[in-house]
Amino acid sequence: MKNQLPAALIAPLVAAGLSAPCVVTAAEPARPNIVLIVSDDHGLDALGCYGNPVIRTPHLDALAAAGTRFTRAFCTSASCSPSRSVILTGLQGHHNGMYGLQHDEHHFLCFDQVRSLPVMLEAAGYRTARVGKYHVAPDSVFRFQTVLSGGAANDPKTLGRSPMEMAWRSREVIESSDARPFFLYFATDDPHRANAVLPDGTPTFDTWPEPNHFGNRPAGYPGITPVVYNPADVLVPPFLPDTPACRAELAQYYQSVSRLDQGIGVLIKQLKDAGKYDNTLIIYISDNGVAFPGAKTTLYEPGIRLPCIIKNPRQPKGGVTQDALVSWVDLTPTILDVAGALPPGAAGFDGRSFKAGLDGTPLRGRDEVYASHTFHQVTMYYPMRAVRTEKYKLIHNLAYPLAFPSARDLIQSPTWISATRDGGGLFGKRSIAAFLHRPEFELYDLEADPDEIDNLADAPALREVRDALIEKTRAFQSATKDPWLHKWQYE
Amino acid sequence: MKNQLPAALIAPLVAAGLSAPCVVTAAEPARPNIVLIVSDDHGLDALGCYGNPVIRTPHLDALAAAGTRFTRAFCTSASCSPSRSVILTGLQGHHNGMYGLQHDEHHFLCFDQVRSLPVMLEAAGYRTARVGKYHVAPDSVFRFQTVLSGGAANDPKTLGRSPMEMAWRSREVIESSDARPFFLYFATDDPHRANAVLPDGTPTFDTWPEPNHFGNRPAGYPGITPVVYNPADVLVPPFLPDTPACRAELAQYYQSVSRLDQGIGVLIKQLKDAGKYDNTLIIYISDNGVAFPGAKTTLYEPGIRLPCIIKNPRQPKGGVTQDALVSWVDLTPTILDVAGALPPGAAGFDGRSFKAGLDGTPLRGRDEVYASHTFHQVTMYYPMRAVRTEKYKLIHNLAYPLAFPSARDLIQSPTWISATRDGGGLFGKRSIAAFLHRPEFELYDLEADPDEIDNLADAPALREVRDALIEKTRAFQSATKDPWLHKWQYE
Repeated sequence: MKNQLPAALIAPLVAAGLSAPCVVTAAEPARPNIVLIVSDDHGLDALGCYGNPVIRTPHLDALAAAGTRFTRAFCTSASCSPSRSVILTGLQGHHNGMYGLQHDEHHFLCFDQVRSLPVMLEAAGYRTARVGKYHVAPDSVFRFQTVLSGGAANDPKTLGRSPMEMAWRSREVIESSDARPFFLYFATDDPHRANAVLPDGTPTFDTWPEPNHFGNRPAGYPGITPVVYNPADVLVPPFLPDTPACRAELAQYYQSVSRLDQGIGVLIKQLKDAGKYDNTLIIYISDNGVAFPGAKTTLYEPGIRLPCIIKNPRQPKGGVTQDALVSWVDLTPTILDVAGALPPGAAGFDGRSFKAGLDGTPLRGRDEVYASHTFHQVTMYYPMRAVRTEKYKLIHNLAYPLAFPSARDLIQSPTWISATRDGGGLFGKRSIAAFLHRPEFELYDLEADPDEIDNLADAPALREVRDALIEKTRAFQSATKDPWLHKWQYE
Repeated sequence: MKNQLPAALIAPLVAAGLSAPCVVTAAEPARPNIVLIVSDDHGLDALGCYGNPVIRTPHLDALAAAGTRFTRAFCTSASCSPSRSVILTGLQGHHNGMYGLQHDEHHFLCFDQVRSLPVMLEAAGYRTARVGKYHVAPDSVFRFQTVLSGGAANDPKTLGRSPMEMAWRSREVIESSDARPFFLYFATDDPHRANAVLPDGTPTFDTWPEPNHFGNRPAGYPGITPVVYNPADVLVPPFLPDTPACRAELAQYYQSVSRLDQGIGVLIKQLKDAGKYDNTLIIYISDNGVAFPGAKTTLYEPGIRLPCIIKNPRQPKGGVTQDALVSWVDLTPTILDVAGALPPGAAGFDGRSFKAGLDGTPLRGRDEVYASHTFHQVTMYYPMRAVRTEKYKLIHNLAYPLAFPSARDLIQSPTWISATRDGGGLFGKRSIAAFLHRPEFELYDLEADPDEIDNLADAPALREVRDALIEKTRAFQSATKDPWLHKWQYE
């Protein structure tokens, strides 16, 4: 006997404040809860389940063992606010208005008419809550019904550095007797670099010659057992210089990652204790790559290729991988799809649902992702548009006559300072000159040159490849209403 | 007998909703009404009282004859929204957050904590109203109690193209029996270029080979007697090419100016008819120079040196001039000063009151003005900081490696199109190459070279002058909390 209403009929009832009839059957479980965990500047380099044997991330590794590990997942912009705006809207940053950072003088914010994921889930009958870092605006667009901890960027009130307290605070949502499914947005400040504030109000990340402490502090954090790393043990990825300064910073970064891992462990345990784990979609991602030059604020792989671990309640088998190319712009449509709330035709998004691949089922037709970066700080104008296929990446540097601008946290890092003083002109494998002064187009063969050192944009043998990829980025800009499209025609 | 309270004591009473005691004496008239008229892209080149014998602006000329004509008045940024934000806050655009245009994808807006002129006047007991173009945001910062006509940018609902209707609509404020003084912000769309909208929503100004019509239309406007000009008669200023295309456009521009002049004539007549003219401070300014390349969006004289006519009710004699250097950033403190509402010490502004010079009294210590331009359209990143003294102008082009970006209305103008096709590499007296590709510093001797053609930044004889002016711009950036100050240090 068919005793249920289609979700599309239930959602309006709930949105209108009416009780939905009880429609749960064994064949069709209730709509899942959704926990979206977003960490801050966590690269693919610092996770056990992604192949790092040194760092201790047992809880994220366990999540991967129970779910699906995405191996080719990409943000669209390696900058906090733009990336988060994409995650929460399914629109590119150049399409939703969040061209750069939200806080202080940067002051970017989404267009008023944008509909965000929490608002759409609320309309579909979800209760919505957030805890930790926010860093998007305006509130009217990114409205959550419940703010478990809130504050300005880098504000201790957000608890973003205290993931265990964030987990504890989340019990209010997880253990609620409210029958509606919930959407919990859980966003840590870890493992972002830490800053102090100068007397004039300017943030500073300058700790030279000491490493940045990435939020680690002698007093520790409630409920956290610090995991301290020896700089001699860390793995220095190819894009970074193997120097004492860098190793000391990576050790601090690892410790920050292990802290957030512990918070996530308790968060998941709370889901299990409340009997809700089996009906919860859990997503772990980072907003962008690690806060070192060569990763964050760039469109190179360390900046945009990121952890993505998803445990789907309807997943028959865990410990699988998904190798298709997926993008943070796909997350909102995917989550809405899982929630049964994707608009007909999935219209209105720049991304598309990859729900069919959540259990590791190979996905077809996902052969490329696009990236769009415009600002980080408002003074850092450097629009880049890129397409990344299985084999190639093409980056269009629209403002290539300018030096690549340096974020405050990166240029003030002891790693950068020591490399520019003593590095012999190199930063990792890349020359500092090439890092700072880029041509209009960069083309990399990611199979032959995974570190993206040899720019093949002018290689005669690849002219057709290059031109086809240029045409793809232009079509992408047109399809996603990019204001910078006109730069093809005139400056 | 002293029968009055100081204004500083009255204002809080009024702000608190209490009636102020009757304190008007013959020696000290009631606080004046304030009418701030801001036109759109009206340069110094197109006004009878500023020396143009062709254009017909009898009502603005009469205002000058009754008041003071400022000969060296400057906006800080030749871009609509930033300039208006400066006019209405007394803060530089880089200090109030309005770095570029407000509308559509540009989406710049002031910081939430900024206090604007209408809000401060309201707190001082004024009733506040606006009519016509707005183009600043957010509403909470630029709050007016009464919106006589409002709408989006270029929205017919604003009546910005219909200055007579704007004047008529203003009678509600002028003729009100409300005893409080009023602040009327009267902002025309004239003489801005006109645009159509393409099917995809993009505005277009492209009328080639016909001239842009600057809002003139066959049907005319209510109450306006069109003044039509013969292209053969217009005066082509030195920064423009003397071509048929340019002359045809200047004729349209003149017609638009004459239209707004008629609206202002009726506005002033209404003040007289209501018996309020003698106690009203009337200010006429433009937001920036005329919408041709070489003026609008530049910091060259045609972009920033603007009409400024002020009729002060306490002025003993009209028809005088004021030659001191004043800036739009001074307007808010000046107006507050006239209203008796300037905060103690005039703290909190980047500008300062020039009330003492409103009757033409020579002002001392006003030997320089500063300009700060960052964006126009959001895609037009080209930060410039400048200092302008009696004799010199120094422009610091922070993003000088980029081509100078072109605003849509300027690059699509028949004047530009014809010059780039047929102009032999020149636009007016300036080479197009020099216009598009600028050095880091430009230094002009305005006495010897009023058209700013010969850049002396590298002239050995002027090295000390240059370095002193560079130091002044840097100090200006520091004093006004310019986010771009750090570009001196890195990037």
